[in-house]
Amino acid sequence: PYSAFTNSCAPVMISSFKRGHMSLYKTRIYYKDTDAGGVVYYANYLRFFEAARTEFLRDLGVDLHKWIEQGFFFVVAHTEVDHISPARYGDLLIVETECTSLSGARFDLSCRVSREEDHQAIASGMTSMACIGEKGKPVRIPQEIMKVLKTSKKEAW
Amino acid sequence: PYSAFTNSCAPVMISSFKRGHMSLYKTRIYYKDTDAGGVVYYANYLRFFEAARTEFLRDLGVDLHKWIEQGFFFVVAHTEVDHISPARYGDLLIVETECTSLSGARFDLSCRVSREEDHQAIASGMTSMACIGEKGKPVRIPQEIMKVLKTSKKEAW
Amino acid sequence: PYSAFTNSCAPVMISSFKRGHMSLYKTRIYYKDTDAGGVVYYANYLRFFEAARTEFLRDLGVDLHKWIEQGFFFVVAHTEVDHISPARYGDLLIVETECTSLSGARFDLSCRVSREEDHQAIASGMTSMACIGEKGKPVRIPQEIMKVLKTSKKEAW
Amino acid sequence: PYSAFTNSCAPVMISSFKRGHMSLYKTRIYYKDTDAGGVVYYANYLRFFEAARTEFLRDLGVDLHKWIEQGFFFVVAHTEVDHISPARYGDLLIVETECTSLSGARFDLSCRVSREEDHQAIASGMTSMACIGEKGKPVRIPQEIMKVLKTSKKEAW
Repeated sequence: PYSAFTNSCAPVMISSFKRGHMSLYKTRIYYKDTDAGGVVYYANYLRFFEAARTEFLRDLGVDLHKWIEQGFFFVVAHTEVDHISPARYGDLLIVETECTSLSGARFDLSCRVSREEDHQAIASGMTSMACIGEKGKPVRIPQEIMKVLKTSKKEAW
Repeated sequence: PYSAFTNSCAPVMISSFKRGHMSLYKTRIYYKDTDAGGVVYYANYLRFFEAARTEFLRDLGVDLHKWIEQGFFFVVAHTEVDHISPARYGDLLIVETECTSLSGARFDLSCRVSREEDHQAIASGMTSMACIGEKGKPVRIPQEIMKVLKTSKKEAW
Repeated sequence: PYSAFTNSCAPVMISSFKRGHMSLYKTRIYYKDTDAGGVVYYANYLRFFEAARTEFLRDLGVDLHKWIEQGFFFVVAHTEVDHISPARYGDLLIVETECTSLSGARFDLSCRVSREEDHQAIASGMTSMACIGEKGKPVRIPQEIMKVLKTSKKEAW
Repeated sequence: PYSAFTNSCAPVMISSFKRGHMSLYKTRIYYKDTDAGGVVYYANYLRFFEAARTEFLRDLGVDLHKWIEQGFFFVVAHTEVDHISPARYGDLLIVETECTSLSGARFDLSCRVSREEDHQAIASGMTSMACIGEKGKPVRIPQEIMKVLKTSKKEAW
């Protein structure tokens, strides 16, 4: 009498089109995600983005949390969200993430949220991640991460 | 004052065999779930409980949200959580849910949280759900739900 | 894709004099607001913005929640946040809000967050609010609100 | 044209009755605190409790965060909440906190939540705090804190 529900663990690789590497994160909407307007509370999309980009990076073999031990901190420098259509209790949302910009000390991860049931676009947005050294100053992103993100952008799909 | 609380501090007991139906909910810990103490913020266990019990009930064919249209509201009347060991960023937590008590207008769902990797017990707790009618007064739980919850308790595993 | 985002990365500009009406919202940082990085979790700034803009509008005599009964819904269409410096447990943050843009069916509220103790700038951002009618389509902002927001922009200080 | 709204900063001492020292924490309800049921989301009461007990202790001259440097960690071991009546958007809630139990390595802080407008009781609950040493084992609460909490219980009001 065991049944299992897994909250969105497996990032799915989509590599058949002509954009870069993209990963998929799924999350079910519960009361905890909603507000008295009857819809998903706007700040929670940034929570979904964090989970989605973590799985995107993990999927590429990058664990930002572990880089802290090497003295590299990745902080959110800028975020933007466009709200297209409200999501509601019970919806299963899909968050697609891809790297859309990459420079010496910064990279942008863009996210697109849609509802699984009807493919309705819900929101899109981005977070700009800055690489910070131990002294709290911006430093170059480690080559290992650079390479992986660059490849993710080129990857045809 | 509040002696009622200090008297009910005993850990939530989950009998260890001949248990009823139980469902599993998994959730990965991201920064959004943690606090500056480096661990999962205590209130977030109640968020996990909500997701877990929703899946438990859905698994039994019960969608509490849909019963609202019939005039039955299920509200949390009481909650308890015992914190056993801290969970951290990156952990994959498993929340097991089962129905541990059932009366005319109320039922208790107990949850046990453990870490997948090492089976470490993290927290246990319960939420007591009350059935409320359209006038805001307690009413009997609909027979359909009663039956399903009763069966879930008997189910051997 | 998402080039629109990478083009609009410029920090939210808040003109430095002859500003309009501005209101102040203060919030103390507790564990609930922080994450395992030891700082305020990035999504929580949008929570502070919501509280701050509600007080800004209430201060101008506008209760958006009450306009719902008249069939006017105010939804967040777009948000941006620039993270300047991390805030930590115990900090007392000040959120300044002002109306920075106003058109027929939309208005922008800009927020600036600083730490009370040392006046350190923490974050700045904006939310673009759209007025939606009962059919879910954009409608003109009610004259009463328009007038108040327009005046708030002119007000010298 | 500055107006100020302070989120619940000043704990108010009530010392005129015959219970122990009690402090007051006020918090306004915004969308961020609510869920699609139209009421304050149940887990958020634990967030209010954290803010309220921090102010209660600060009011007594105890900053638990600073004790960390001395090797004393205060963790939540157990929580309970009774939900009496729902709170809604716009409500101003008052959280009263007092120390209701005190032993060698543990103390209980009880909270009572009511709505300012009509004094309606909303929820009551408690958190049991354990003192943990650097090795992660329970240790005796420092004398300085013990004394202050003991006095707070005796204090007539």
